Parts: sequence; structure tokens; C-alpha cells
Amino acid sequence: MTGRRKHTLAELAAMTSAKVRGDADRIISGVATLVDAEATDITFLANPAYRKHLGTTRAGAIIARAEDVKDTSVDALVTDNPYATYARVAAAFVPSAEDATTGEIHPSAVVDAAAWVDPSARVGPLCHVAEGARIGARTRLAAGVVVESGVSLGEDCVVHSRVTLCREVRLGNRVIVHPGAVIGADGFGLAHDNGQWIKVPQIGSVVIGDDCEIGANTTIDRGALGDTILEEDVRLDNQIQIAHNVVIGAHTAMAGCSAVAGSARIGRYCLIGGGAGILGHLEVADRVTLTAMSLVTRSITEPGEYSSGSPLQNNRDWRKNAARFRQLDQLARRVAKLEKNNE
Amino acid sequence: MTGRRKHTLAELAAMTSAKVRGDADRIISGVATLVDAEATDITFLANPAYRKHLGTTRAGAIIARAEDVKDTSVDALVTDNPYATYARVAAAFVPSAEDATTGEIHPSAVVDAAAWVDPSARVGPLCHVAEGARIGARTRLAAGVVVESGVSLGEDCVVHSRVTLCREVRLGNRVIVHPGAVIGADGFGLAHDNGQWIKVPQIGSVVIGDDCEIGANTTIDRGALGDTILEEDVRLDNQIQIAHNVVIGAHTAMAGCSAVAGSARIGRYCLIGGGAGILGHLEVADRVTLTAMSLVTRSITEPGEYSSGSPLQNNRDWRKNAARFRQLDQLARRVAKLEKNNE
Amino acid sequence: MTGRRKHTLAELAAMTSAKVRGDADRIISGVATLVDAEATDITFLANPAYRKHLGTTRAGAIIARAEDVKDTSVDALVTDNPYATYARVAAAFVPSAEDATTGEIHPSAVVDAAAWVDPSARVGPLCHVAEGARIGARTRLAAGVVVESGVSLGEDCVVHSRVTLCREVRLGNRVIVHPGAVIGADGFGLAHDNGQWIKVPQIGSVVIGDDCEIGANTTIDRGALGDTILEEDVRLDNQIQIAHNVVIGAHTAMAGCSAVAGSARIGRYCLIGGGAGILGHLEVADRVTLTAMSLVTRSITEPGEYSSGSPLQNNRDWRKNAARFRQLDQLARRVAKLEKNNE
Repeated sequence: MTGRRKHTLAELAAMTSAKVRGDADRIISGVATLVDAEATDITFLANPAYRKHLGTTRAGAIIARAEDVKDTSVDALVTDNPYATYARVAAAFVPSAEDATTGEIHPSAVVDAAAWVDPSARVGPLCHVAEGARIGARTRLAAGVVVESGVSLGEDCVVHSRVTLCREVRLGNRVIVHPGAVIGADGFGLAHDNGQWIKVPQIGSVVIGDDCEIGANTTIDRGALGDTILEEDVRLDNQIQIAHNVVIGAHTAMAGCSAVAGSARIGRYCLIGGGAGILGHLEVADRVTLTAMSLVTRSITEPGEYSSGSPLQNNRDWRKNAARFRQLDQLARRVAKLEKNNE
Repeated sequence: MTGRRKHTLAELAAMTSAKVRGDADRIISGVATLVDAEATDITFLANPAYRKHLGTTRAGAIIARAEDVKDTSVDALVTDNPYATYARVAAAFVPSAEDATTGEIHPSAVVDAAAWVDPSARVGPLCHVAEGARIGARTRLAAGVVVESGVSLGEDCVVHSRVTLCREVRLGNRVIVHPGAVIGADGFGLAHDNGQWIKVPQIGSVVIGDDCEIGANTTIDRGALGDTILEEDVRLDNQIQIAHNVVIGAHTAMAGCSAVAGSARIGRYCLIGGGAGILGHLEVADRVTLTAMSLVTRSITEPGEYSSGSPLQNNRDWRKNAARFRQLDQLARRVAKLEKNNE
Repeated sequence: MTGRRKHTLAELAAMTSAKVRGDADRIISGVATLVDAEATDITFLANPAYRKHLGTTRAGAIIARAEDVKDTSVDALVTDNPYATYARVAAAFVPSAEDATTGEIHPSAVVDAAAWVDPSARVGPLCHVAEGARIGARTRLAAGVVVESGVSLGEDCVVHSRVTLCREVRLGNRVIVHPGAVIGADGFGLAHDNGQWIKVPQIGSVVIGDDCEIGANTTIDRGALGDTILEEDVRLDNQIQIAHNVVIGAHTAMAGCSAVAGSARIGRYCLIGGGAGILGHLEVADRVTLTAMSLVTRSITEPGEYSSGSPLQNNRDWRKNAARFRQLDQLARRVAKLEKNNE
């Protein structure tokens, strides 16, 4: 992966508070894996499983912990957190927000006269920005974005192509929204009346805190009464469903295809596995980890790791075991009876 | 939540067939929760869990059952179904369909000369309406909607931003489609031939009945031969997948991320929990409830509530139990042997 | 289903290498099911469950195996693989790629001067094609498609409405992408640093092989370093999530709502059931079948069919059994103790 910029190791160290070991003037022009890196690339070692590649890498430099650089003569950025340092270094080789921002409103965009777009913001081709919307400084909308009436976007946000921000949703600063995401569609509110459903108006909105990231085709519904809230630095992967009036605590990360039902409150620093589900009207404590495809049906009051489901087996064995699951209560009663008879 | 309109309690009662208790001339300008309501708001009590807030609410009026209003001196709309009454009252404070309808085709919309748009319909910015499409009276398309050739939309539909209606799908009256939904994409039809897949043309369409609601980023595939059908008043939440040739009975509601495989027939008045799956070519009776993330692998012939899955536990305990699941058939055989030995 | 074209049985046989039995000059104008077909339609019998309709079908002709045509006097196309033959015959009655391709760039499309569009390609209304994009011969973009900078599309691709192809993704020839799909959004890469998340730049891309098909609202993330890869003839249904750096082997088919986490490698000729999940950094061998909603947590090294989950029951029975699952390890220990006492 050849970058478009060049930096010396000393410059990269200055950006990341890492220490240089070796040639501080070495010029780096890109990032790559231990296996693929060339002499002008910097690589990193964060996961011990890849230590085996240390001896053979052709990288010009490596980002690694002090104990790991001992085993190599490659020039290095030494740091306690190589993955975070790598993230910052890689960003230095990727075209940045400022590059792309030109203060341009593309001529094909439809921006209502009663919308406010900061002069440093960018509105891409075929976007629609409706009346009363406000778009902050250096915020960029890619192509085909729909910003409905009264939406507010902070500074330095990146809204990728074909995102929909529904009426009156509010995004903080530095929020990233990936393509196809829908923020602020109506929650699923229905009242039963004489054998018919009546739609319950969804009058609340969605409030997204600073530094949140919303994945592709993820959906976050507006509140029924009151708002759906993501606190700061919440990270949502793709195809996640957040129902109305959910509150997600700061720094929580959710993996793809997970979902939270209405009015659930998720704590801070939670890690929600892919495909996991959380039922409505319950609370999940801070620092809870859910493994993939688990289902939460009651509040979780203690931090820790939680799971549900059954293990994968070949279908023949699984069928036999699954059939027994249907009789598990009976089996337990039979065991209890045996125990009684054996007393 | 301050509304933009004002109604007396007497007017709200007339709209909803509820009875006024107290000051029928009281002026209400919005709806809010029991906790947040102010003197100009009307609130509601449907869920007994919130009865504790009755004594302290500052609401100007409340929608509640007769037995609940006994405990409060707040002016009230008395009704047997407070949630349905609330839904109707709230709608009276929300800008309505008629307000937004102006008979306008936005100049940036691309409407084919061979499409027919009722003069009272609205086509928003950057929509595309292809040849042969028909858009009924007072139906509104928001921004960036794609209506392919031959699509038919009834009256009073609301199609939100960035929806795709594929060629020849047919929607009834008062259908609501939320952003990003795709109705009528090809079903997943493949034939195996000499180690390659051959695409099976998907020649059917999708027919959506009156009063259906389709959630954000939900997908409903067109039939392979014959149509995929939603009967009237079917309510689908976000990110639901409905495969080709599925039929969903009237008044069934499905929660987010649930899915139905090809040619399954779902009954009327079913309630499908979030993330639940229904395999193809089977039937689900009327009035079946599925709990969240359940999987239906055979037809269900009796109404009732059904579930699959295992309960959430801390990961340490779960690992032990899950490991035993792998041997469950063997365990049952061991118990049977013990029983035989104990005879 | 009346088609718009007419073919004799002899012509259809020539297209499909099937043999005619009966009147080779019979004129066919459409395809339909055994039950719905009329005298001008051709139908097919692939699934033995439908053999019962053979005696009553009014079809003009039927596609079937030799042993099945013995039981009917209807004119026939005889073949060993009726479903594949049906797929080819049906395609002959559906408007084809060439019909729709007019070499047109719709005047409402925004095509960058530094993009290259083959003269025989089609760019539909309100599409955006950015600088450096290349669109091959006879490839068609429907309406509202976003093609970001540097994207490369091969020949004869069909990109349906409102698809997003992110910067620099590369599609082979004859790739079909259904509405709302997002190919090349950033992978979910986060580094933890002092209680905050840092975004890890996603520098790789997505490479899609020839003859792949990508379902509606499916998402395929770009690689972190190096590419996410679909080999040729991979078929993805709707609402699938493919994370960064996943590799999917040729001819694998995945049903709706399934998901693969980062850096997993899926083999060739796998069949992944609806809603199934595959964790990251593991390998799945060739010719593995996963049943619906199964979860793969370790590498699978042998071909075969695999499952996880528990069977559906009525909620009352399920609750009892699920409660026992929480004590399954204890139950197994109790059985072991009984066995010891019975020695």
C-alpha cells in the first residue's frame, strides 16, 4: 500500500508520542502488514500471533512494544499501545478531511434557501438539504445524502453517500455516518384498536454525541416521546438496528447486525457482539460484553461477559442433542427421581 | 413537546370517542409523558407500571381508563383503550399529510413523460419516477425516491426518502414506506448447473395491501413466479427481510431484523419478535406469537406463543453448560441406562 | 405470466441443450407454474412434491426429466436438470440486458469529466460517477447509483437503483448488485486508547469476481490493509454483512441476513443459511453447509452440514427446558455421581 505522502520516522513519532529507535530521518510513504510491507512502508505488531513474521519482514520501520523490538533490527516507533499508534500513523498517509473540503456546494445539490451551510462545509452531488437544516464547519456530505428539515450537524462530520438524516435529528461534532444509514425514521409504535393497528406518532428525535460512528445501512429510530440518544464516542458497525428511545452510553461499541429494542438503556464501555439482541425496557450495566448472537431478555446489573446459544456441531449430532433439549425438563425430573431412589 | 396546534379537551374527545372528565374547554397544545408533561400538554396512562407518576404529573390533562382517573384530579379523557386514544390525539398535534401535500413536483425530480402523477400528489427533490408508473391522489414521495417502471401507488401513501420501488410493484392506499426500504428486488433464485450458479429470472412482483407500513432498510423481494404478498395492515419494522413468494396475513406485525424465507405463508394477527427467522415453504397459523430470535423450521398449525434458544448467562457458566449440550443425547442415554439398572 | 416474446419449442431446446418431445413447432410466449400455466406457457417440474399437478396442468409444454414426462402427454423439453433449463428458458422471455442498454447517459446524471464510461454502457437518472471511475462495456447503472472515485466496473454488470460503490472498489464482469447495497464502506476498525476509541483507517478495498450477485441492502466492507475479496460466482442474498478482509471462495451462496466477521476465510461451494454468523479470523472449509441461524465460533476443517441452536417449542415448554439449560453442567455432574454410586 503506497501512500501519497512522505513522513520521516521523527515526524511520525512526534504525531503519536512514540519513541524512535534507529534512524529518525528514515522516510516512510505508506503503511502495510508485516508480510506485505516494503522498504518505504511502516508496519506494526500488536497481536502476538504475528510475532513470527518479525524476522522476515522487509518493512522500513515497525510500530511495536519495547519488548518486541528487542528481537528485530528494523527501525522502530516504540510505544505501549502499538495498535493505537498505528491508527494515528496510518491516518497520516490517508487523504484527510481538510484535503477534501473545498467549501463547495455541488451545482447538482438541492439546498433549500432556508437551510444554513457553513462556508467551509461541503455538500456533494445530488444531495438534498431541506429548510431549517444547519451544517457546521468543515462538515462534508458525500453524494446523494438527504438532510431533512431542521436537522443539525456539528463540525467536522463526515456523512457518506446515500445517508438519510430525518427531520430534526441532531448530530454532534466529528460524527461519521457510513453509506445507506438512516437516522431518525419513525419508531415502531403501534396501538391495537378493534382488530386494526393504529400508528402512534413518533414525536421525539435522535441525538448523536460527538465522535460517534454509524455503520453502513444501520438504522436508528427517532423517539416516540423524548429522544433516542447515543452518548459520545459510541461506535456502531453496519446493519445495526436501534429502536426508539434507546440510550447508549459513551464509548460503547456494537458489532454488525446487533439490535436494541425500544427504551432499553445500554451502559458505557459495553462491547456488543455481532448479531446480539437486547430486548426493550431493560438496562445493561457499564462494561458489559455480549458474545455474538446472544439475546438479553432481562436487565444486566453487573459488568462482565455474557452469552447465550448452543455450540456448533455437525448436523447429525446436533439433531440428536436438539431433540433431547425438547425433553430437558423431563430429563432433569428423571434424574431427580433417580437421586431420590438412590438416597 | 410543544405542539403547533391547539385543541380543547372537548375537541380531542370528539376525535377519539373518549369522554371528558373535568374542564372540557381546557386548551391543549401538545403531548408528553407523565413525567415531562406541562400544563398545556396532555399525557396518557396505558402501562400500569407508570401509575406511580399519577400523583406528581404536572400535565394539563390525561388519557386513562376510568379506574385510573379515580386516583387523580387532573382533567381527563376517559377511555377503555388509552394507548389507541393517545395515538389519535398525538396525531392531532403532528403536521398531517394534507399540510405537506401541495401537488408539487420538485423541479429537480425526474418524472418520465409516460408516468402518471395525480395532481394532488407530491414528488420531492431528486426523485425518479419511470415510465408507466402511477402515483395516486395525495401520495407523497420525499427526497431521492426511485419509482421504477410500471409501479403503482395508491392514494394517501407516504414514501420516505431514498426508498426504492422496483419495476411493477403495487402498493395499496395509505401505505407508509420508511427510508432505505427496497420493495421488489429480485428474489434469491439460483439453479446449480455443472458447478456454476445460473440466475433464475424473478418474474413475479410484490403486492402490498392497504394500510401496511414498511420499516427503514427493510427488503421485500419480488416473486419468482407469482407475487410476494402483504395483505392489509401488515406492519414491518426496520431491517426485515421478506423473501420471494412469501404471503403475510393481514394485521401481522414483525419486529426489527426478523426474516421470512421463500414461499412461507404467515397467518393473520401474528406477532413476530425481533430477529426471529422463519424458514421457507412452510405455514404459520393465525395468531402465532414468536419470541425474539426464535427460529421456525416446521409449520406451526396452532395459535400460541413459541420460542427457541437458550437463556443468557455469564460466559463462564454458559461455556460449561454449552459444552454439555454437545453431549446431551449421550447424557439422556446414560440416564435411561441408570433407570433400567434401577428397575 | 405472459411473456413479451415468442419462441418455438425447438428454439428453446436449442438454447438449452434439452430435447424436444412432441410438437417442436409449438409456440410458447411465457413461463408459469404447473398450476397457473396456460396453453401458450411453458412450465417445469423440478421438485417431486409438485408431480401431483402433472395430470391437471393446462401448460402448453413442460420442462422435466425423462422419467417424469412418461406420465404426461404434454409437449416437453426433456433434460437432466429441469430447474437450470427452466432458468435459461425463463431468461428468454424476460427483457434482456441488450434491450435496456442504449449507450445513454441520462441528462440528470452527474458524471465527472475524469471518469471513463464505455460508449455502450448506460448511466441512469440521478447517478453520480466520480473522477477516475471506469465503467465497462454494456454495464448498466439504474437510477440514483453512486460510483465513487476510482471505482472500476467490468463488462455487462447490472447495478440496480441506489447502490453505493465506494472509492476504488473493483467489480469483475457480469456482476449484479441489487438496490441499496453498499460495497466498500469502511471496516469496523477501532483501537482503544485512554478510554477513547481511535478510528483505524481502512486502506484496503473490495474486489468482486466475475458473475457475483450482491443482494439488496447487503454491505461489504473494504479491507483494513489489503482487500476484502469475493471470488467468482459468489451469490449473496439481501441484508448480508461481510466485514473487512473476509475472503469468500468461488460459487459459495449465502442466504439473507447472514454475516461474516473480519478476516474470516470462507471456502468454495459453501451454502450459508439465513441469519447464520461466522466469527472473525477463522477458516471454513470448502463445501460446508450451515443451517439457518447457526453460529460458527471455530474453524471448520471438514466439509459437511453444521448447525447450532435449539428447537422451537411452545413457550411454556421452552421456558421449562431453557431453565434447565442453565443447570446443564450440574445435571451432568449429578448423573455422573449416580453412575458412580451404581457401579
